[in-house]
Amino acid sequence: MSSNFGERIKISIFGQSHSEAIGVVIDGLPAGEEIDLEKVQAFMKRRAPGQHKYSTTRKEGDVPEVVSGLFEGKTCGAPLCAMIHNTNAHSKDYSNLVKTPRPGHADYTAAVKYGGFQDYRGGGHFSGRLTAPLCFAGAVCMQILERKGIHFGAHIHSIHGIADTPMNPVEITAEELAAVTAKTFPVFSDEAGLRMQEIIEDARLNQDSVGGVVEAAVVGLPVGLGEPMFDGLESKLASILYAIPAVKGVEFGDGFGVAALFGSENNDPFYFDENGNVKTTTNHHGGSLGGISSGMPLVLRAAFKPTPSISREQNTIGMESGQNETVRVIGRHDPCIVPRAVPCVEAAMAVAILDLYELQQKK
Amino acid sequence: MSSNFGERIKISIFGQSHSEAIGVVIDGLPAGEEIDLEKVQAFMKRRAPGQHKYSTTRKEGDVPEVVSGLFEGKTCGAPLCAMIHNTNAHSKDYSNLVKTPRPGHADYTAAVKYGGFQDYRGGGHFSGRLTAPLCFAGAVCMQILERKGIHFGAHIHSIHGIADTPMNPVEITAEELAAVTAKTFPVFSDEAGLRMQEIIEDARLNQDSVGGVVEAAVVGLPVGLGEPMFDGLESKLASILYAIPAVKGVEFGDGFGVAALFGSENNDPFYFDENGNVKTTTNHHGGSLGGISSGMPLVLRAAFKPTPSISREQNTIGMESGQNETVRVIGRHDPCIVPRAVPCVEAAMAVAILDLYELQQKK
Amino acid sequence: MSSNFGERIKISIFGQSHSEAIGVVIDGLPAGEEIDLEKVQAFMKRRAPGQHKYSTTRKEGDVPEVVSGLFEGKTCGAPLCAMIHNTNAHSKDYSNLVKTPRPGHADYTAAVKYGGFQDYRGGGHFSGRLTAPLCFAGAVCMQILERKGIHFGAHIHSIHGIADTPMNPVEITAEELAAVTAKTFPVFSDEAGLRMQEIIEDARLNQDSVGGVVEAAVVGLPVGLGEPMFDGLESKLASILYAIPAVKGVEFGDGFGVAALFGSENNDPFYFDENGNVKTTTNHHGGSLGGISSGMPLVLRAAFKPTPSISREQNTIGMESGQNETVRVIGRHDPCIVPRAVPCVEAAMAVAILDLYELQQKK
Amino acid sequence: MSSNFGERIKISIFGQSHSEAIGVVIDGLPAGEEIDLEKVQAFMKRRAPGQHKYSTTRKEGDVPEVVSGLFEGKTCGAPLCAMIHNTNAHSKDYSNLVKTPRPGHADYTAAVKYGGFQDYRGGGHFSGRLTAPLCFAGAVCMQILERKGIHFGAHIHSIHGIADTPMNPVEITAEELAAVTAKTFPVFSDEAGLRMQEIIEDARLNQDSVGGVVEAAVVGLPVGLGEPMFDGLESKLASILYAIPAVKGVEFGDGFGVAALFGSENNDPFYFDENGNVKTTTNHHGGSLGGISSGMPLVLRAAFKPTPSISREQNTIGMESGQNETVRVIGRHDPCIVPRAVPCVEAAMAVAILDLYELQQKK
Repeated sequence: MSSNFGERIKISIFGQSHSEAIGVVIDGLPAGEEIDLEKVQAFMKRRAPGQHKYSTTRKEGDVPEVVSGLFEGKTCGAPLCAMIHNTNAHSKDYSNLVKTPRPGHADYTAAVKYGGFQDYRGGGHFSGRLTAPLCFAGAVCMQILERKGIHFGAHIHSIHGIADTPMNPVEITAEELAAVTAKTFPVFSDEAGLRMQEIIEDARLNQDSVGGVVEAAVVGLPVGLGEPMFDGLESKLASILYAIPAVKGVEFGDGFGVAALFGSENNDPFYFDENGNVKTTTNHHGGSLGGISSGMPLVLRAAFKPTPSISREQNTIGMESGQNETVRVIGRHDPCIVPRAVPCVEAAMAVAILDLYELQQKK
Repeated sequence: MSSNFGERIKISIFGQSHSEAIGVVIDGLPAGEEIDLEKVQAFMKRRAPGQHKYSTTRKEGDVPEVVSGLFEGKTCGAPLCAMIHNTNAHSKDYSNLVKTPRPGHADYTAAVKYGGFQDYRGGGHFSGRLTAPLCFAGAVCMQILERKGIHFGAHIHSIHGIADTPMNPVEITAEELAAVTAKTFPVFSDEAGLRMQEIIEDARLNQDSVGGVVEAAVVGLPVGLGEPMFDGLESKLASILYAIPAVKGVEFGDGFGVAALFGSENNDPFYFDENGNVKTTTNHHGGSLGGISSGMPLVLRAAFKPTPSISREQNTIGMESGQNETVRVIGRHDPCIVPRAVPCVEAAMAVAILDLYELQQKK
Repeated sequence: MSSNFGERIKISIFGQSHSEAIGVVIDGLPAGEEIDLEKVQAFMKRRAPGQHKYSTTRKEGDVPEVVSGLFEGKTCGAPLCAMIHNTNAHSKDYSNLVKTPRPGHADYTAAVKYGGFQDYRGGGHFSGRLTAPLCFAGAVCMQILERKGIHFGAHIHSIHGIADTPMNPVEITAEELAAVTAKTFPVFSDEAGLRMQEIIEDARLNQDSVGGVVEAAVVGLPVGLGEPMFDGLESKLASILYAIPAVKGVEFGDGFGVAALFGSENNDPFYFDENGNVKTTTNHHGGSLGGISSGMPLVLRAAFKPTPSISREQNTIGMESGQNETVRVIGRHDPCIVPRAVPCVEAAMAVAILDLYELQQKK
Repeated sequence: MSSNFGERIKISIFGQSHSEAIGVVIDGLPAGEEIDLEKVQAFMKRRAPGQHKYSTTRKEGDVPEVVSGLFEGKTCGAPLCAMIHNTNAHSKDYSNLVKTPRPGHADYTAAVKYGGFQDYRGGGHFSGRLTAPLCFAGAVCMQILERKGIHFGAHIHSIHGIADTPMNPVEITAEELAAVTAKTFPVFSDEAGLRMQEIIEDARLNQDSVGGVVEAAVVGLPVGLGEPMFDGLESKLASILYAIPAVKGVEFGDGFGVAALFGSENNDPFYFDENGNVKTTTNHHGGSLGGISSGMPLVLRAAFKPTPSISREQNTIGMESGQNETVRVIGRHDPCIVPRAVPCVEAAMAVAILDLYELQQKK
């Protein structure tokens, strides 16, 4: 297990779905940064379940308790630890899953890796619930970065093929990002959003689930973030994004789309704007050249697989019987996790970006 | 700069396109592993330029010289260092690029990050040439892993929209991987390969370039590799793949395709095969569940942008003049780097996989 | 701040002397290890204050609450987090120390480093109290290592020049270590112990404090632990020991004594004992050769400075006044921290040794 | 093996005593720093053998060849790699040592750790020769730090009990450090130096060796370097110093001497000097409080054991025979390595200090 991320901003996430608590330690935060905990909580609420009919009915209070690292409301240089108590855990729902691992879940791989000692209740440390402390950490980092003019935002790019209006990678602004993330269902086109919600509801009624894509942006990045070859902007971001359960693809700028372009189309010409700032007329590169931020908006997309927990009967193995068996996943599950994944993507980005920010060489 | 990768297998890559040499130090290799340097060289030759009309005419000897870490042909526990001398560097070709950064390159971002002190000749440390030591390291790791029954391979999945026959993610074998990687132009369908080569040649004649996608697989992985949350299989692999210049997208299994599937389609049912081994009937997950290898083939794809170096005139900025200018990239460039990127993807995977292999908890 | 240690066993310590809680996250513990929490608590009690007249009268419950990482009494692969609530903190005692930093403390250096935002109450994150979570982590690691036949122990080597009987570095046994650590005042010679306690009491009455040396040993280490050049046995152990407040010297085997020996005296001859095991007749090397464990007892000593908190008036600076001033440290302080430091040394060693144990190459 | 050090300034040392070359990659150096290679070479010459009758007669050219990382004489952001070819290696001298491991050496522990595959010629990667690339790295870091007003120096504190005049930890200056390090035999008292040389020569004639202590200082450090709890100034320095072969003790300020002081003696009172700078009247703390630099001179001592290679017959084991045997070490060896260790200590400190310098939080 390696639930640590970062070199200067080091986070250490702990907890299982049904342990007494989950939480995060954030080491290396610059001192003297005011942290608005209400704002943090508002951010975390975007991830919290129970807000929609298409999300699990498990009610998580998700009230993080900061037990260290803040002094008089500001970071004090010491590691910041936040705890979230697991108050609404129904352990009994999951007791049989250790015998018949759920397809698409980590039940089987974790059982082998941890020799059968893993906490299988509710997915244990592999539960999507562990993105709550990630969101906490991200919300803290975001407040620090916002003071430097760096802003984050994301929207649902598509669900099961239904696409929202994509971001304009050249002109996207902090205000537009703030507006879309303020929505309960974060899409630019509410009409597309309604159709997405319909297909989620259809899937739910059909004991099924759907996947989708989250598109995110960071605006206001200075030129120069990223430490090539191996800690470049894309490496760092992809690395943390793949820690979010269900992510199966990450792309930057035009991403897989670049494969069908000519160089003459894909190259983004530089120019000086009226203020003498260096920009590119297009932004196929998505804000990163050579693993280093270019000053253009950073744009990425992450693909989320359909929630593997579906209540239909599925084929699987009997870990004890040694025979092929079936499993029916009972419990509370989101038919689509994409809406709740939106703030997780933003949070993961904020942690990685603050780490890279602090990794920059002092001038 | 952070040209180090890995926790147990730690590689440190050095060199610039026109420095005296480039190379890599590999620390943490298990002792007693025989390394066949001819086989390493044969692997590296797959990446070397000058083999096709569509690759740069720069001739790199690319003869790695092992200066430490081997004793009587075997790893001895001490760090293995390999050097490749830069014998055919034409520094004068690139001298004006510091003034007019090439669109799509790291020239501008590196200049800002390193305060104008970067070695701009031929792209410096950002040159694709730095994938040669990565290939060396990968070839070494691959030999060690092959002895454990873990095999690597990749093919050109598509170039500018022309698709090769995709891999069968359930049934792909070590033999099939060996066969395709033995080809000069590594595709399953030679007919598709010819069409790809035509479009590359068209691009070249048109002073343009094209991108594409590499698809890679690892077979024979034991169950249990990967250290979630943050050093899971996908995190680790994506992180190193994005260190290869021009990669803009990385996806596993069905990747972005999962976004259009229902959970009931995407979940891969487990079963015991005739030998009592646990398998899945389909492999949408691409060999990783919860960031841990499942024992099924690991399948991923990486998207490469078109070579940004094209000889057409392009708009850019004048770093000294402060005015908008144009640039024409002169020199030797591949109109498509995808064919040479195939072994780079395999090499990057091998380094990451051996690192995860060594990170596994001892039983 | 960098309160993280370890590569495979990664601990992240959080908390300040007067924050809501202190604690530790331990990532990377092997799964399936039974942890006896009563034994952990008994270990921590050895560090707890309030047991002697020579220790601070602050009563710390020091009851660690495990909030994650254990499942049915065993490690489950997920990070183990333990919290200790700060229930008996008298914040008001320390309020003036930010203005007149205490000589010998981190008050001044922390104020400069953290720009005045540090939590100065009771020393904040620099308080000796932060060794409680270190002891928790060490006690957990120790239980795992004991099952492998690796045993830890330490005694007070000297206090203010009064020396205990030193360890026999060749013949020290697990039983002898267990016996001495079971004592309230851990010395081999109780007579020397009484004299040490007298000098501590004298210092206390005299508003002063005394320092001393802790000597520690590990027996049962396999040959081969340590990762030279930079993560050798001594590097790793010294690195973590210097994280214990007040440590100013660390030496292995004969330590500084080697400087006065001839090579012919200091070299420890190897021999096969009656069971065919390789041993050395003497143990000047203290169990480490080339940064790798030799199989002989690991023996080290750590020097602790006298508690800097003394109630005498001392000269210092006025951070606000800009004038030279005086300070009188009021509050509850140990006139000698060495007795309570004994388990801290053992704990630090256990964390480092388990990390090195897990870092060993699999065979 | 883990021959990597540092988080921002990452060095990776490679090579064995008799491999084709040894060297170092330094990643993370700030760009734009002019490196005077003649000055580097002059520094390395202080470590080079063959200058005195008391050092090995092996002539090392020790001419480092910089193969990457410098551009027009300045660091360019890319990793700097320096190679030193092994031109004067007599492999045949050592061929029997694998059978009868030398007491006091890593021969035995390395053989067990690396399963008999270690390069045993001349000590392999454990040879003192590997301090040459460390000195290279240190010399580079030192030039960068000197421009910031941070100066390094060390002297022979004692050899076999014969003591040089100790440093004045309060008043030591950059000039005094420069003067003593300019000497061929770096001591303050040349009279003591002569007596030291006599005892070394006596040991040599007597087929024996002697140990000693190096005392080093850093002046001009800003307040605030060090990342507690685990990357504090002492942790970082001790960690790298123990990577120098033969070091068995490291202490800071009064070191083990603090154990015999009262707190009222050991506490260093703060005061404002005439220029308003914060200083301490004494410097028992050796420049570090709470793991953070205080602005006072950093003072440390490292104890070196007598060279284990002595030509007398010694008892050891027969690795092949399984019987107790004897060994006689033939070859070229220093009867005392302390004089040559002086620049190694300085170099190690410089690497660690530059790493901590770069780890500081940006303001």
